[in-house]
Amino acid sequence: MGLLVVGSIGLDDIETPFDKIENALGGSTTYISLAASYFTGPVSIVGVVGDDFSIEHIKMLENHNVDLEGLQIVEGAKTFRYGCRYNYDLNVRDSLYTHLNVFERFNPNIPARNKKSPFVILGNIAPSLQITVLDQLEEPKFIVCDTMNFWINGALDDLLKVLKRVNVLIINDSEARLLSNEPNLIKSAHKIIGMGPEYLIIKKGEHGALLFGNNTVFSAPAYPMENIFDPTGAGDAFAGGFTGYLHKNRDFSFHNLKRAVIYGSVMASFCVEKFSTKGLEDLSYLEIHNRFIEFRELSSFN
Amino acid sequence: MGLLVVGSIGLDDIETPFDKIENALGGSTTYISLAASYFTGPVSIVGVVGDDFSIEHIKMLENHNVDLEGLQIVEGAKTFRYGCRYNYDLNVRDSLYTHLNVFERFNPNIPARNKKSPFVILGNIAPSLQITVLDQLEEPKFIVCDTMNFWINGALDDLLKVLKRVNVLIINDSEARLLSNEPNLIKSAHKIIGMGPEYLIIKKGEHGALLFGNNTVFSAPAYPMENIFDPTGAGDAFAGGFTGYLHKNRDFSFHNLKRAVIYGSVMASFCVEKFSTKGLEDLSYLEIHNRFIEFRELSSFN
Repeated sequence: MGLLVVGSIGLDDIETPFDKIENALGGSTTYISLAASYFTGPVSIVGVVGDDFSIEHIKMLENHNVDLEGLQIVEGAKTFRYGCRYNYDLNVRDSLYTHLNVFERFNPNIPARNKKSPFVILGNIAPSLQITVLDQLEEPKFIVCDTMNFWINGALDDLLKVLKRVNVLIINDSEARLLSNEPNLIKSAHKIIGMGPEYLIIKKGEHGALLFGNNTVFSAPAYPMENIFDPTGAGDAFAGGFTGYLHKNRDFSFHNLKRAVIYGSVMASFCVEKFSTKGLEDLSYLEIHNRFIEFRELSSFN
Repeated sequence: MGLLVVGSIGLDDIETPFDKIENALGGSTTYISLAASYFTGPVSIVGVVGDDFSIEHIKMLENHNVDLEGLQIVEGAKTFRYGCRYNYDLNVRDSLYTHLNVFERFNPNIPARNKKSPFVILGNIAPSLQITVLDQLEEPKFIVCDTMNFWINGALDDLLKVLKRVNVLIINDSEARLLSNEPNLIKSAHKIIGMGPEYLIIKKGEHGALLFGNNTVFSAPAYPMENIFDPTGAGDAFAGGFTGYLHKNRDFSFHNLKRAVIYGSVMASFCVEKFSTKGLEDLSYLEIHNRFIEFRELSSFN
């Protein structure tokens, strides 16, 4: 059985100091499924778009063996749209607009055969919707969850319910500090593990990522990037690479989870090298493997 | 021949959210020489104090095989004093006062036999004084240099002269961005290497450290610390551990420089566990070695 991804699908207008793009494919589901597709397949997605969603995007996803049975296309309505502008240092993003459109009434209906998916990634959507998804699953074995400041601030009760039901929570450092109300990241991680998830991954952007769980910690380096073209989707590409790798080999040892974190970091590094999903569309196994080796050389010593 | 350290020696009043201490031993020279003393000896220091400097501090340094021939004690004058208060998250420090006292007229006179020291650490003092030190050296082989925002902003011309004459520059990430006028740390590092130093170490606090040089990069993890008691001196302890380890085995391969970065990180992690220099005063070789192993387990994967 496959890997199920539930989250947003959108069209983005992105401006960086280097270039701008309009109507670009975006949304957490898109980045996650593309990144995961290099490790395992088919990846099934559940999401919603309007009739303005381009057939080219659909074809590109199908070419990556993404199963679109769960994609709702609403006639006469518009796809979720997001516009943003990155500042010079790329760590700061100004949101220009968010038009929820069809996403406003999104109700994730899991197709019958996907209800048995043992691997599920809950993209960054309202925790109440994440609960709706969890309630439909019949045999979940490994659930990976993303969230953000907006839900930590505005839907904490629901989020805490979700956390009791997931295996891995993936958030960034500021989200971890907010969720735990604790500035020290290590203490913060222990508090969050206490909220339910078996494992916690804290993404730290240019500083790499930390994996907590099993009473131990793994520190993954960041790929040394001189040119980050578009940071959009990096966190989703991480989640897709991480979970896709685990889905491929079903080895849940901490040893293998560490490798999965590196594969997540590899996919995030490819993601930010090009605009929108372009960095994830034409990779080879060799490129992915070679970058994994680069990560090892970057951080190994004895 | 030994390892020579030139920098400040002071008495600190430190307040953290957990405790406070007055008249504590401080200054870059002190932390550097203590950290280095666990790897090699004797470590010779050049610095200045007033007659208020406690005999206990002198004895403690001597017990660590620190050679004090170059320590000037000025009768009737006061030692450099610094007071600061750390905020709750310990990344933010408010300086309460800085009384230069004897340090205002510090002119580093290197004792004759120390002029032949092949290994020299230039602690964080005015670049013009660092030049004075370099001019007195007869056979320098490996020079490690620290600096800070204050000198980058106020004495850039002198600092650039220093950088052309040192092997390793050790600074933190905000200092690297300031010195290079470049937000991307990787580009920043390339620019700084272009200013002269063979190697550059960028310390990132809770995010570890990066070593650049030899056309390659090494990413060292940070020790996962739940309780940072007093961050004072961590950067100096890093410089002492790094250089002390290299002085011990004289192996300048990139492979060994990576190990030295980890030993620097080990000493910094011990430093912040106690107030003032206390965390560096009573370590055993086994403790240091075991923490090195912990660093390796923290970041290794294959």
